Amino acid sequence: MPRTAFFISDGTGITAESLGRSLLAQFENVDIRMLTKPYIDSIEKARGLVEIIEGAAVKDGEQPIIIDTIVDQDVRNVIRDAPGFKVDIFSTFLKPLEQELATHSSYSVGRTHAIGSDDVYMDRIHSVHFALDNDDGARTHQYDKADVILVGVSRCGKTPSSLYLALQFGIRAANYPLTEDDQDEDGNLKLPKALEPYRHKLFGLTIDPRRLAAIRHERRPNSRYSSIDQCVQEVQQAEALYRRMHIPFIDTTRFSVEEISTRMIAETGINRRFSPR
Amino acid sequence: MPRTAFFISDGTGITAESLGRSLLAQFENVDIRMLTKPYIDSIEKARGLVEIIEGAAVKDGEQPIIIDTIVDQDVRNVIRDAPGFKVDIFSTFLKPLEQELATHSSYSVGRTHAIGSDDVYMDRIHSVHFALDNDDGARTHQYDKADVILVGVSRCGKTPSSLYLALQFGIRAANYPLTEDDQDEDGNLKLPKALEPYRHKLFGLTIDPRRLAAIRHERRPNSRYSSIDQCVQEVQQAEALYRRMHIPFIDTTRFSVEEISTRMIAETGINRRFSPR
Repeated sequence: MPRTAFFISDGTGITAESLGRSLLAQFENVDIRMLTKPYIDSIEKARGLVEIIEGAAVKDGEQPIIIDTIVDQDVRNVIRDAPGFKVDIFSTFLKPLEQELATHSSYSVGRTHAIGSDDVYMDRIHSVHFALDNDDGARTHQYDKADVILVGVSRCGKTPSSLYLALQFGIRAANYPLTEDDQDEDGNLKLPKALEPYRHKLFGLTIDPRRLAAIRHERRPNSRYSSIDQCVQEVQQAEALYRRMHIPFIDTTRFSVEEISTRMIAETGINRRFSPR
Repeated sequence: MPRTAFFISDGTGITAESLGRSLLAQFENVDIRMLTKPYIDSIEKARGLVEIIEGAAVKDGEQPIIIDTIVDQDVRNVIRDAPGFKVDIFSTFLKPLEQELATHSSYSVGRTHAIGSDDVYMDRIHSVHFALDNDDGARTHQYDKADVILVGVSRCGKTPSSLYLALQFGIRAANYPLTEDDQDEDGNLKLPKALEPYRHKLFGLTIDPRRLAAIRHERRPNSRYSSIDQCVQEVQQAEALYRRMHIPFIDTTRFSVEEISTRMIAETGINRRFSPR
């Protein structure tokens, strides 16, 4: 029987869930069912949730873990009565921070993921449409306006990473596929012409050929495209190109989109246009 | 002179930054410069960072705020020597959690945003490509496979929301624009034909016409498309359609992409295919 953990917020629940998952990821041997409960922003909703928590406690035979970032005092007070082991982030840290900063906290809900200024909003929308318009080398080539151009073989993670960089950090990320079409006379991969003026903006992705074959197999089963021989050759050629051209690159095999994106930023020093909220 | 806050992690820094911003957002009157320092995963990097923190302390004339999710004990010990007011998330909560769960934490780095199982990875990639292929009603119409179809006038936030839903939650979100092309004889907006079989999957977005005009103005300045009259009329017609067809909808005017997405999930009860990591 798994034990239940509740991540509770009066806003989106993103912070509570992110922290809760980080903490509970450290207990890999414990079977925990995780539930995120966002927008608990009224006494009524809080009372309804307390009933759900009580139900879980009875069903599990153990008290739930309750991790919350509720700001509103009245709502907190209702949740306080629920049976559970409580990780109360705000009450733990806000008081000491108030002392250190010699000011009172505003105790206002939903500040973290609020929309932000008009400029921030526009930057984000621009960046998303920039990533879409400059995806896969296909449509427009606004590479003069790009913060970074991700390169790599088909299905190594360029598109999701470009979109994540846009949404999360407002970074204008184009991406361009490396394919057999761009070979010199000796059969070596060469830099596509469209990228030549922008060598300083390039960032390479590479991937284990076996993993690449598995991903491509999902798309086109039993094709030359997804064969291990083809994948080995494409990856070798791409890596050789990166080395020859001194293009910085990372291996995405064991990395999530979050890790690819944040490592790229850390390695290149590219400025975010805004910060995640 | 602003005061400096450091969000430090031996992984992506996403959790530390998310929590740090949530806490500091409660002190709107304090001028704080926020710096995220991810991948502090060696003694050497930690020592380098301590020097940076010392520099900030001298420059600011006040000790920095240090919010960290470092798991590795040796790295933590180095950071401990830095001058600063420390919000030490893991040491504050892991010990009590160990007691409650009657087990030891694994103290392993980078679990939160790790790549996850192959299934989770594939689901995420699928969802991103699904959102791209089903963006703006343009290319393929795989609406039978969609978890949700976002509808709304041009530039009300459909595309960024669809992509966020895909990346963050693995939800397959198509989106379809409501335009003047779909009117009945009386000049009322009618449901586009392609959407008729999928009325139960529709979720509407609406927006304040003035805000819409400002967003459209960025794209096509001084056009009919961005005129306030045009925006008022399109928004009125869209909202009338939602009401007539009983399509649930939210007003995105004051909402970020995170809020639009999490509220849509909360209101529809759509299941995430995976959880953010």
